[in-house]
Amino acid sequence: MIETKAYAAQDENTPLAPWTFERREVGAHDVQFDILYCGVCHSDLHQIKNDWFPGIFPMVPGHEIVGRVVKVGEHVKGFKVGDLAATGCLVDSCRTCENCKRDLEQYCLNGNSQTYNGLEQDHKTPTYGGYSNTIVVNEDFVLHLKEGVDLAAVAPLLCAGITTYSPLRHWKVGKGHKLAVLGLGGLGHMAVKFGVAFGADVTVLSTSPKKEEDAKKLGAHHFVVTTDPKQVEAAKNSFDFILDTVSAEHDFNMYLSLLRTDGVHICVGVPPKPAEIAAFSLLGGRKSLAGSGIGGIKETQEMLDFCAENNIVSDIEMIDIKDIHTAYDRMEKGDVRYRFVIDMATL
Amino acid sequence: MIETKAYAAQDENTPLAPWTFERREVGAHDVQFDILYCGVCHSDLHQIKNDWFPGIFPMVPGHEIVGRVVKVGEHVKGFKVGDLAATGCLVDSCRTCENCKRDLEQYCLNGNSQTYNGLEQDHKTPTYGGYSNTIVVNEDFVLHLKEGVDLAAVAPLLCAGITTYSPLRHWKVGKGHKLAVLGLGGLGHMAVKFGVAFGADVTVLSTSPKKEEDAKKLGAHHFVVTTDPKQVEAAKNSFDFILDTVSAEHDFNMYLSLLRTDGVHICVGVPPKPAEIAAFSLLGGRKSLAGSGIGGIKETQEMLDFCAENNIVSDIEMIDIKDIHTAYDRMEKGDVRYRFVIDMATL
Repeated sequence: MIETKAYAAQDENTPLAPWTFERREVGAHDVQFDILYCGVCHSDLHQIKNDWFPGIFPMVPGHEIVGRVVKVGEHVKGFKVGDLAATGCLVDSCRTCENCKRDLEQYCLNGNSQTYNGLEQDHKTPTYGGYSNTIVVNEDFVLHLKEGVDLAAVAPLLCAGITTYSPLRHWKVGKGHKLAVLGLGGLGHMAVKFGVAFGADVTVLSTSPKKEEDAKKLGAHHFVVTTDPKQVEAAKNSFDFILDTVSAEHDFNMYLSLLRTDGVHICVGVPPKPAEIAAFSLLGGRKSLAGSGIGGIKETQEMLDFCAENNIVSDIEMIDIKDIHTAYDRMEKGDVRYRFVIDMATL
Repeated sequence: MIETKAYAAQDENTPLAPWTFERREVGAHDVQFDILYCGVCHSDLHQIKNDWFPGIFPMVPGHEIVGRVVKVGEHVKGFKVGDLAATGCLVDSCRTCENCKRDLEQYCLNGNSQTYNGLEQDHKTPTYGGYSNTIVVNEDFVLHLKEGVDLAAVAPLLCAGITTYSPLRHWKVGKGHKLAVLGLGGLGHMAVKFGVAFGADVTVLSTSPKKEEDAKKLGAHHFVVTTDPKQVEAAKNSFDFILDTVSAEHDFNMYLSLLRTDGVHICVGVPPKPAEIAAFSLLGGRKSLAGSGIGGIKETQEMLDFCAENNIVSDIEMIDIKDIHTAYDRMEKGDVRYRFVIDMATL
């Protein structure tokens, strides 16, 4: 077994603190890589607090993981010691269901293995995430990174990146489309970068006028303050797509009114309460409210390659792991531009 | 002016009763046709009761209207006296917005003219519907019917028909698709007929086991009783599309769980309260909740022609207009197979 240093929550009421545990030995198809950087996702906080469902404790969060390979199993073909490596939200899936066969492991019908707060495919062994010094993952769920990239700024691509890239690709958002990005946080700022890279006309929708300058710097073409009724009125019936990255409660019917006929409102955030959708909000223009969750392994690799070719990374603030509680506090207030990344050398 | 006999509601608290009013003279582009049959839509009852929004009174309901032409304006090209004619939910639209130009008059951005409880394009003159002996409509909003069709059974195609035909065509539902039809009423029974005609594998979802025999007679291949947890469990992740015709409150999240990955739940009914949609119901399989409202004029004609060629009509119960209140009472209880049609000769 491999002794592993980590930060863990012992239960939903206890703050993260140093913890040591054992990872499995490197199997024939496994890659072990030492973690250099791990991004801090809002879902880390939701999960250690049991906001969505009862978690598996002790819990080591973190699913935006980059590092360098230190050991490979005898049958591993794609990686060798010294290679860069990354893991996102998934470390395994059933591989046999129709979704896994279509490279949609994120929707595995038999239950995939989330990188933390999940179970391995034996449906017994808990998984532990990237707030740790090393990780062992089946090579099929390890992503390749190009040498020379800014590793810390790449880490958030593994969740915030793929979560926004995947729906924009699925709905073929690009030239000729008006895309609104709702919320300018970790996910939203990546959605702006991808929307611009794909050729869409990008508008940021935000309650905070202060974010306009930043939105424009990120490449957004327009900015709408959603607390200003005049700006909202002017934006009605104008967007082909809204990519909704907001995890707080919000008025979906108002946003649906901003869509053109046949427009699609795509949710990637998980608000605490169900959305209330008036039938006429959809019927009055053949509109859709859709959801999208992360992305499959093949698409995640495609996204990482696209980002490397197009110089796209996340805007980050690097932190020491001892400052994780301050980072969580600031994240809850939306006070981060735009993703905290833990320098795992500080563990 | 043309003196017209009708049944009207004088306000939202007064039952329908005989009323006489004047329709406009036949203009250069108008067709006047005497009404032979008018279907009874659930929305007639919603609107005379102000269930959705304050109505325009006196109100003459009815938007499933068929009859025979008695007069045409001098510039009318498509109709002559003695022709069959029909009008559905729309009698005009702005004709200039991007939706009207794309044959989507139902989503006219400047406000279309609903056949009743609406305003003509002068935005002043109220419209009066088909519970009347004659009607004057601009020829562009009058549909053609083939001689020899069962006119009374064709009438409901003008709303119940197009409302289900249009989304099935838009989402290209057909061979290889599993389609669930939710609710087996006026709209649902048409959805079954169209789904079968388009080659889909059709399942009726209903709370009422008694409807199974009827569903099968209408052509449905399968039947799921949604109050039976075992049947619901067995149906999970199985449908490509759900066409939801239910206007009462229902649990959307349960139905969304029956969709396969990338499945679409299409609403054509208008429940009294907003739908409550949990984010994970959509994210957990890239699912969509969509809405669709009636159809455009060109598509309505296409639907009528398709029905004539494929011998598709509505299953109806003919009533005298004096029995409209009994029909409403029965309709509210779901006690109709599957559409009441008024024989306007009884007016």
